[in-house]
Amino acid sequence: MAKMTGTKTPRTARGERTLRALLDAAAAEFGEKGFHDGSISGITGRAGVALGTFYTYFESKDAIFRALVTDMSGRVKDHVAPAMALAPDPVTAEGAALAAFLHFARDHKEIYRIIDESEFVDPASFRAHYEVTAQRIAQRLRHAAEAGAVRGDVGEVHAWAIMGMNVFLGLRFGVWEDGADLDSIARTANDFIARGLKGGD
Amino acid sequence: MAKMTGTKTPRTARGERTLRALLDAAAAEFGEKGFHDGSISGITGRAGVALGTFYTYFESKDAIFRALVTDMSGRVKDHVAPAMALAPDPVTAEGAALAAFLHFARDHKEIYRIIDESEFVDPASFRAHYEVTAQRIAQRLRHAAEAGAVRGDVGEVHAWAIMGMNVFLGLRFGVWEDGADLDSIARTANDFIARGLKGGD
Repeated sequence: MAKMTGTKTPRTARGERTLRALLDAAAAEFGEKGFHDGSISGITGRAGVALGTFYTYFESKDAIFRALVTDMSGRVKDHVAPAMALAPDPVTAEGAALAAFLHFARDHKEIYRIIDESEFVDPASFRAHYEVTAQRIAQRLRHAAEAGAVRGDVGEVHAWAIMGMNVFLGLRFGVWEDGADLDSIARTANDFIARGLKGGD
Repeated sequence: MAKMTGTKTPRTARGERTLRALLDAAAAEFGEKGFHDGSISGITGRAGVALGTFYTYFESKDAIFRALVTDMSGRVKDHVAPAMALAPDPVTAEGAALAAFLHFARDHKEIYRIIDESEFVDPASFRAHYEVTAQRIAQRLRHAAEAGAVRGDVGEVHAWAIMGMNVFLGLRFGVWEDGADLDSIARTANDFIARGLKGGD
């Protein structure tokens, strides 16, 4: 788990488990009730920890919400990375990243509500989530360009375009529709990206 | 203006001007303060109309917010349509649509806050906004395919991908950065889309 402002870093394995339980409980609480109706007692009840324990880790409801956005951002990255590592080339890796993300969105539908609500609860976290994600995609595209796998002039516009595709495909097919064939959708989107990033005429 | 639930349709030109003034005032009020802190008296104050007049058109704060999402959705469409009509081919038209949308987002930065907040205030309007927009793009893509301008199997996945690109490029370069060269960004994105939608190997 990344270091988070307003969050005490646990020093023991047991402390790490408690922090993980609090963040998972916060995801369930805010995902179901939203930030305003969600409560610290709802979180500690779900996590099965005492109220005093909560304050060992977080100073407020705002602090755990902020930590949760950072945590979810990191969990998406960690979920997507192994799928990308197995891909034979950088463009296929983007498709693998999308497929992994679509499955993550289906299994963690609350992520949309939480990230989207952060625009209002904590605008800096909202912006940081997307800026960091776009920077990560842009860096991958630059490496792909250096390897000759995509056009040489890929940049920030392509990164934001690909991130936007992923976010909306995740909303439509991961969150809103339970029966969609996510791997087929990822293949269609990846073919679109692969052609789109080709150089030449 | 489209027919909206909870909204009385004005019968005179003066009535239409009042309704327009109320919707513009609501965009400013909710864009600045958000839904919860925004108020009917704030809206009537900005519009320069009496409180009683408000209730001639809308039954509640919820009703004008709902009407505003529908109105903004329609205004984007109306702003983008003339730019598309001038384009020489269906693929260039998508680029023209994006450029027009980026300029609209820069000039109406409140649209993001309002549409995004509708996810929490009025989820049905949020969903309808994106479903209608994606259907519009999908229909354009089908026409382009029939004209042989893009691959034959374009569909819903491509439409949601393009919409997601547009939304995130609008957020990043229209709303967050005032100095970005929007036409250059639209050209880069359109080149990406044009290549992405090509058929063949």
